[in-house]
Amino acid sequence: VTAPLVTLLTDYGAQTEHVGALHAVLAAAAPGAGRVDLAHDVPPGDVRWGALLLARLAPLLPAAVHLAVVDPGVGTARPLVAVGLSGGGALVGPDNGLLGPAAAALGAVAAVRLADTGAPATFHGRDVLAPAAARLLTGAPLASLGTPVDPAGIAAPDLPPPHVRPGVLEALAAGRDRFGNLQLLAGAADLAAAGLRPGHRVRVSAGACALEATVARAFADVPPGRAIVHVDAHGAVAVAVNRGDAAAALGTSGGGRVRVVLPDGARG
Amino acid sequence: VTAPLVTLLTDYGAQTEHVGALHAVLAAAAPGAGRVDLAHDVPPGDVRWGALLLARLAPLLPAAVHLAVVDPGVGTARPLVAVGLSGGGALVGPDNGLLGPAAAALGAVAAVRLADTGAPATFHGRDVLAPAAARLLTGAPLASLGTPVDPAGIAAPDLPPPHVRPGVLEALAAGRDRFGNLQLLAGAADLAAAGLRPGHRVRVSAGACALEATVARAFADVPPGRAIVHVDAHGAVAVAVNRGDAAAALGTSGGGRVRVVLPDGARG
Amino acid sequence: VTAPLVTLLTDYGAQTEHVGALHAVLAAAAPGAGRVDLAHDVPPGDVRWGALLLARLAPLLPAAVHLAVVDPGVGTARPLVAVGLSGGGALVGPDNGLLGPAAAALGAVAAVRLADTGAPATFHGRDVLAPAAARLLTGAPLASLGTPVDPAGIAAPDLPPPHVRPGVLEALAAGRDRFGNLQLLAGAADLAAAGLRPGHRVRVSAGACALEATVARAFADVPPGRAIVHVDAHGAVAVAVNRGDAAAALGTSGGGRVRVVLPDGARG
Repeated sequence: VTAPLVTLLTDYGAQTEHVGALHAVLAAAAPGAGRVDLAHDVPPGDVRWGALLLARLAPLLPAAVHLAVVDPGVGTARPLVAVGLSGGGALVGPDNGLLGPAAAALGAVAAVRLADTGAPATFHGRDVLAPAAARLLTGAPLASLGTPVDPAGIAAPDLPPPHVRPGVLEALAAGRDRFGNLQLLAGAADLAAAGLRPGHRVRVSAGACALEATVARAFADVPPGRAIVHVDAHGAVAVAVNRGDAAAALGTSGGGRVRVVLPDGARG
Repeated sequence: VTAPLVTLLTDYGAQTEHVGALHAVLAAAAPGAGRVDLAHDVPPGDVRWGALLLARLAPLLPAAVHLAVVDPGVGTARPLVAVGLSGGGALVGPDNGLLGPAAAALGAVAAVRLADTGAPATFHGRDVLAPAAARLLTGAPLASLGTPVDPAGIAAPDLPPPHVRPGVLEALAAGRDRFGNLQLLAGAADLAAAGLRPGHRVRVSAGACALEATVARAFADVPPGRAIVHVDAHGAVAVAVNRGDAAAALGTSGGGRVRVVLPDGARG
Repeated sequence: VTAPLVTLLTDYGAQTEHVGALHAVLAAAAPGAGRVDLAHDVPPGDVRWGALLLARLAPLLPAAVHLAVVDPGVGTARPLVAVGLSGGGALVGPDNGLLGPAAAALGAVAAVRLADTGAPATFHGRDVLAPAAARLLTGAPLASLGTPVDPAGIAAPDLPPPHVRPGVLEALAAGRDRFGNLQLLAGAADLAAAGLRPGHRVRVSAGACALEATVARAFADVPPGRAIVHVDAHGAVAVAVNRGDAAAALGTSGGGRVRVVLPDGARG
């Protein structure tokens, strides 16, 4: 048998004390488990972006316990849950929308609301969630961690659909990566529905900022410093600047709406 | 028996080449040991904050070798030491205050000054400390690493006590976390001694900056954007802004004094 | 036998989703391999700095598969390669200069151009390179990964030599570390050839910025806040400020030229 595996995804910041605390608790309570950091640079409190990252990263792994903590409501009544997955493994985290997309992607077959351990209200990651993950890793059945809840009721984040009409795609910018690539809540079908095809010159705007871009397949389809609108490696429509920072150029890191417009008469 | 475990805490920055060098040296010389990163984003040279983090994180683990490097005096005469702990394991690092609180928390039962290996004077972490940690991990006795020194003499950092009087708590801001929560060198007893209780409206100031806050138990006790003074998950008095950044609002990241004042007549 | 080992070096940023994706792919496809992060904070697209870091870090480890991704030309025609090393292990990455110095340091004995897997053009790290590394880790022979190419032809980055004359050393600043130490493309012999010796007071300039410094052996040879020019722990000439940030003082993070000048009559 392979060793049990636990992944970590948080908004705690890269290699901060809080990430260290999770690792320490897991190393102490589940010393035989492998640990994989999925991401810790989620912007503080950005549940939606954390949820999207978890849903794209967790499926890369075999059955694992996925510990996720982006929890701006720590200390409020939102429950902490563990969700059993159809292929084995589980999601462990706050039921605030963070787990919804991953639960949908991996198949939620059971869920429990974690029993109140009397932990103080400020560091549930260390005091409640990591210990719960460790119990699963060392063989505890999901049902032993709390009271059953409907796995179909796990909360999903607000993911507003794009507005599409001929020559216009308007979508929420969900987040950015280290390179400034700005990912939109839209997919290849939305781009096609707007009639935007590789080679089209478009105007991309966010608030008061705008830039000219080319609908393209790869960064290298335009010279350095020029922008593209493309379908990225996650299947999402994204705005990128070849060897540059599109998010900075558009003055946004995510959370606002971005418009991609094909000027009249510009169709190739 | 469980595998040997080594933790790493530095001010080298998250996933920098310097952290990579420590991991590489440990992976090469102690391939069977598990490695846990406790924190690497300690502000450069902030020995006090590094010492406090080490003392709170190391006790989360079973017996381990804790390699810690925050060493603004690298190349000076301050010794490099290894400290044997009462529950097994050791601390390895510069004797500049960084190890004192952890030594006190875990119980120092022996100590050696590491033998001079003739390493150049600029990267003791890679050239002296990580190799010493690896020797301990592979079974070398503490005494074989250098000359005995008094474990009671391990240096502690400067931790100035708070000033407390009725309605006033003034304390050093020791550091901040990724969320901008600002931790003070004061505890629940100091808060109580100042007569500050949950529900009190207080004024928090640092230098020329100030904000209004509520003494509270959890972030969620105030609306988003409002500040609290609370006892945090480490037992320290802290200033936080619900879904905001208290350190930025107060214009400090630690190192200066913070005053919490209950206005006359404001007691509930 | 020891477990197989894979190292990771990228410009993906510390503990970002992209680093997480590489770890996830490796943990899934080569679960028995140890993983060591060498560095992920390489400035975006800085192939030269990544190449220098890889060449200094990889030799710290025994035979390993070194997965390196700094690839501003992702999607262009530059090949992806795997390079077999004389002591065992391999380098896996884009053949854009990133692997050259490490190949020279470790001895390249064979190389293949990775077969086109039909992966999309934007995330070769996750889709091509990490899977290739995993295949090597699980025993696949190098030759099975693609078509042979000349290992002597692996690209090296542009490393312009310093200009040296009596009292003057001018060199490219290759990069900086977290402490603001600025590393030059020059070594101890260049410093000596310029007649610069410990104790000399020199002027260091980069563009319009300049500072006074002392040629020294260690940070502690000057008071806090003062600058030194020294041979660092990697054998390179570097500019540093004791407990300060030389790169910030010189207004550069690398990529420009730095001049170290001994004023007339200043020789000790």
